[in-house]
Amino acid sequence: MPVRLTNYFLRTLREDPSDAEVTSHKLLVRAGYIRRQAPGVFAWLPLGLRVKEKVERIIREEMAAAGAHEVHFPALLPKEPYEATGRWEEYGDGIFRLQDRKGADYLLAPTHEEVFTLTVKDLYSSYKDLPLSIYQIQDKYRDEARPRAGLLRGREFTMKDAYSFDHTDAGLDASYQAQRDAYERIFARLGLEYVIVQADAGAMGGSRSEEFLHPTPVGEDTFVRSEGGYAANVEAFTTVVPDALPTEGLPDAVVLDSPNTPTIATLVDLANAEYPRPDGRDWTAADTLKNVVLALVQPDGSRELVIVGLPGDREVDDKRVEVAFAPAEVEPATEADFAAHPGLVKGYIGPWSPDGAVLGAESATGIRYLLDPRVVDGTEWITGANLDQKHVFGLVAGRDFTADGTIEAASVREGDPAPDGSGPVHLARGMEIGHVFQLGRKYADALGLKVLDENGKLVTVTMGSYGIGVTRILAIIAEEHNDEKGLAWPASIAPFDVHVVATGKDPAVFEAAEGVVADLEASGCDVLFDDRPKLSPGVKFADAELIGVPKIVIVGRGVADGVVEVWDRASGERTTVPLAEVVPAVRG
Amino acid sequence: MPVRLTNYFLRTLREDPSDAEVTSHKLLVRAGYIRRQAPGVFAWLPLGLRVKEKVERIIREEMAAAGAHEVHFPALLPKEPYEATGRWEEYGDGIFRLQDRKGADYLLAPTHEEVFTLTVKDLYSSYKDLPLSIYQIQDKYRDEARPRAGLLRGREFTMKDAYSFDHTDAGLDASYQAQRDAYERIFARLGLEYVIVQADAGAMGGSRSEEFLHPTPVGEDTFVRSEGGYAANVEAFTTVVPDALPTEGLPDAVVLDSPNTPTIATLVDLANAEYPRPDGRDWTAADTLKNVVLALVQPDGSRELVIVGLPGDREVDDKRVEVAFAPAEVEPATEADFAAHPGLVKGYIGPWSPDGAVLGAESATGIRYLLDPRVVDGTEWITGANLDQKHVFGLVAGRDFTADGTIEAASVREGDPAPDGSGPVHLARGMEIGHVFQLGRKYADALGLKVLDENGKLVTVTMGSYGIGVTRILAIIAEEHNDEKGLAWPASIAPFDVHVVATGKDPAVFEAAEGVVADLEASGCDVLFDDRPKLSPGVKFADAELIGVPKIVIVGRGVADGVVEVWDRASGERTTVPLAEVVPAVRG
Repeated sequence: MPVRLTNYFLRTLREDPSDAEVTSHKLLVRAGYIRRQAPGVFAWLPLGLRVKEKVERIIREEMAAAGAHEVHFPALLPKEPYEATGRWEEYGDGIFRLQDRKGADYLLAPTHEEVFTLTVKDLYSSYKDLPLSIYQIQDKYRDEARPRAGLLRGREFTMKDAYSFDHTDAGLDASYQAQRDAYERIFARLGLEYVIVQADAGAMGGSRSEEFLHPTPVGEDTFVRSEGGYAANVEAFTTVVPDALPTEGLPDAVVLDSPNTPTIATLVDLANAEYPRPDGRDWTAADTLKNVVLALVQPDGSRELVIVGLPGDREVDDKRVEVAFAPAEVEPATEADFAAHPGLVKGYIGPWSPDGAVLGAESATGIRYLLDPRVVDGTEWITGANLDQKHVFGLVAGRDFTADGTIEAASVREGDPAPDGSGPVHLARGMEIGHVFQLGRKYADALGLKVLDENGKLVTVTMGSYGIGVTRILAIIAEEHNDEKGLAWPASIAPFDVHVVATGKDPAVFEAAEGVVADLEASGCDVLFDDRPKLSPGVKFADAELIGVPKIVIVGRGVADGVVEVWDRASGERTTVPLAEVVPAVRG
Repeated sequence: MPVRLTNYFLRTLREDPSDAEVTSHKLLVRAGYIRRQAPGVFAWLPLGLRVKEKVERIIREEMAAAGAHEVHFPALLPKEPYEATGRWEEYGDGIFRLQDRKGADYLLAPTHEEVFTLTVKDLYSSYKDLPLSIYQIQDKYRDEARPRAGLLRGREFTMKDAYSFDHTDAGLDASYQAQRDAYERIFARLGLEYVIVQADAGAMGGSRSEEFLHPTPVGEDTFVRSEGGYAANVEAFTTVVPDALPTEGLPDAVVLDSPNTPTIATLVDLANAEYPRPDGRDWTAADTLKNVVLALVQPDGSRELVIVGLPGDREVDDKRVEVAFAPAEVEPATEADFAAHPGLVKGYIGPWSPDGAVLGAESATGIRYLLDPRVVDGTEWITGANLDQKHVFGLVAGRDFTADGTIEAASVREGDPAPDGSGPVHLARGMEIGHVFQLGRKYADALGLKVLDENGKLVTVTMGSYGIGVTRILAIIAEEHNDEKGLAWPASIAPFDVHVVATGKDPAVFEAAEGVVADLEASGCDVLFDDRPKLSPGVKFADAELIGVPKIVIVGRGVADGVVEVWDRASGERTTVPLAEVVPAVRG
């Protein structure tokens, strides 16, 4: 049966919704696909649901081809499993929590590692049961601080999440590869460009981790790639560490007056004016060592100061530093923090002063000190002398100061060398559309999932976790496939194959349109039929362009001559076609 | 592709789960269909998900045939619409409430009238857009006090809920009938016995309301039906009101001593012993008027006493009285309530004492007094004299006492006359599997859903609401279709059409089984293939019987003679069939 616009639940809108920031959001609302219910929470109207089901069907087919079986877990889950893995606390404000009438704690699951692990533990006990890959397509919940951009970052959203269970590392590699291959097939079928980047596993733990990013200027993630094939998101990028330099023969560090130089720029200006470099070159920000004071707030609420030292021409990158310190939250140090540490001279902080070591666990302040990996032994720096209005020049790493470790916290820059030697990297923006990673034994350890191996010994299972954002993918495709008139879906996920528009008021035209619809349906097409009797052709065409079905058949006065027009939505091309040839013209 | 047991996510269990009360729950868990995650919250394993999808497919087909379009609304919804209709409070402890990180209130929707209404209001403005019927198949949440019986009463469960929108009462009648007809087709296709009973709309408001009940001893609902075709749940049953009797000439009421008669039984015994009836017949409980003190707790927390007078041979029915006083909650009066009303003499309460009226809004106590409809004017009663150890005999309704109204609160009994004159009713137990009702304009009024009618006048839309419990239906079918060996699904919703079991270790047998599987698949069957190499036939057969696929094909040593066995799960009949005839034997 064709869907007839005379009784379909659809109303197109002329105005963009006032809260819409991105094109996909505007068009999906205006064309009647979705409707906002709360921030980041949407209803799916009939057109939207059809597209979503087509995306899901492609995913299901490729999951089956990858040997994964579908299950469906609840959204409402008890606290205990998430407490056992620490995620109940680690998620902080990022999840929805609630209590039932008896006061028991629940959450709306943001992802399901724990309960998949426990269910496999309940049911399986032998290596013979493995490998196992199971998945679900299910509504997930995250209490995002800034739900934005329509479906691109929602608070209720649909995900495909798969989990693999193996008893050997080689098994995990194979399960991981099967999912990774399936993702490549899924995105290819969806016509969705992607880059596979190395990712940090973040709060999920685990080892190998790759993200599928769709390159797009509206993306929230920054990633880097080299001509030579390296690709990583900035959180996972690792700095190429230069070789250490000899310290012998380097001049002693000197403490110099540097009034009114609380910033790197003022410091460099003063240094060039007052203390020119012996070799005549200018001092630059890269010659300075900046020491940034951060406060780490652990999930249990405890607060600790840490200082990150990095070249003065780099900033601390919020996302990289978050990942480096996860699960702690990272905040700038407050006045109260400084007040509690009178040993720190704000604006002139440095690891050393004439009295000796100032930063580091063993130092005068006892504050943990972490260095950018570029600050190798033998490098010389201008940095704070931890005395008001004074800096120290020629302070040598490894000779004059040391740290408690290194940290990947500095911003990545266009042209930085890729860690695999494949050349300089370029920065780009992307949106995460998939994530595959090897959880390893983290969850199985926490929840006690073991099986008997070939030798009758209990071994801990190793797991993978594989996610695709179904609703986000749909939005990204809408973001890519549109023009000023509206949406223009690719055939693979269009809500209908063809949109038949009957124009005018002539009953003969409507009768001919019914015939065209019947022919198209008989050929296996899903047909949307604009049979509304009293609307002008202009209104109908505008709706068809907004809705974006790939092929539009216009049945109008031409039927007197036995012809209709077939209109390709994406190219805009219109072709006059004899009635008898509509089906091949549409199906191509 | 067939599903192979060697790598399917399935583990059958020999033991019933310890928390299972009903057969369907035990078998669905043991056969690997579902797995408990929390009280009333279940995961769907692959087998269960397949059955659920088959139930949903039947519902979708019949919804489409009824002209309803599918949508999908969020489970997480903001408080405000539910506050506007009063349901945020009315639901009491029965829903899950939560707050987001900004402190905004949300609920997990138990049903979606409000947001469907608001979305239609957002998009539609004219009678020309109507009628409209839209539905979803979606996970719902209710914080049941006693989640029980597995899927029969869950806290997260799947429902099909449809809503119709019309601008005339006749339109609503037609939309209602279309859904009602669709329900009849759905239950017929599912092979599910049902009775359509008149229902009280309860907290939902509205007018015409019918429930589809499946008669079953494990049902939670009591309903009545007469031979003549009347059917209603007990909440909706209405008492046949006898004609009033003349009061002239009746003797005066007399107050008599009745020591130690706080109950109806002790009172009747004393009356027969001390005050025999003039006509020689025995006094019975039906001659007494029992006055039950109840406390009504309104959603806003306010508490009010009310007294229900009813013949002493009837009890106050919890469900009927709840419906009668909804949305208030009904509790027995406490000692504190009595202490606050010293005018009530506990155990001897009556509407009248020698000093005059005691009960009723205008009386000495001022407590609202409601009477069973059978207590018509002119009937004579033995009832409390509101004096300690005293009753009044021959108290005449309408002459000696009146009430503030009538109430349908008394229990319904086998043999009570049906209100439509179709004869005495019988009581039965049932489980609600569907509910259709006319909401009328309650929600549209509360939320301001109006459209322009034919004359350009704004009219309020009239709505219907239509629900089917998807997961409950599945459980009821499992409850009906099983034997001591396990499940025995009807073909319409079985997880597979046929279960092929290869027995023994002979490679030729397994090869023949592969051929049988391929033939069955080619004929369009969904095949579950037990290809596990090392299990005994007994274990495989036990699994097949537990899982309950309707047809089982046993491929064993007979293949040497070119035959296999086809086993009908429900009847137990086994037939030897030549290999070439397996497909017709299975497909029947």
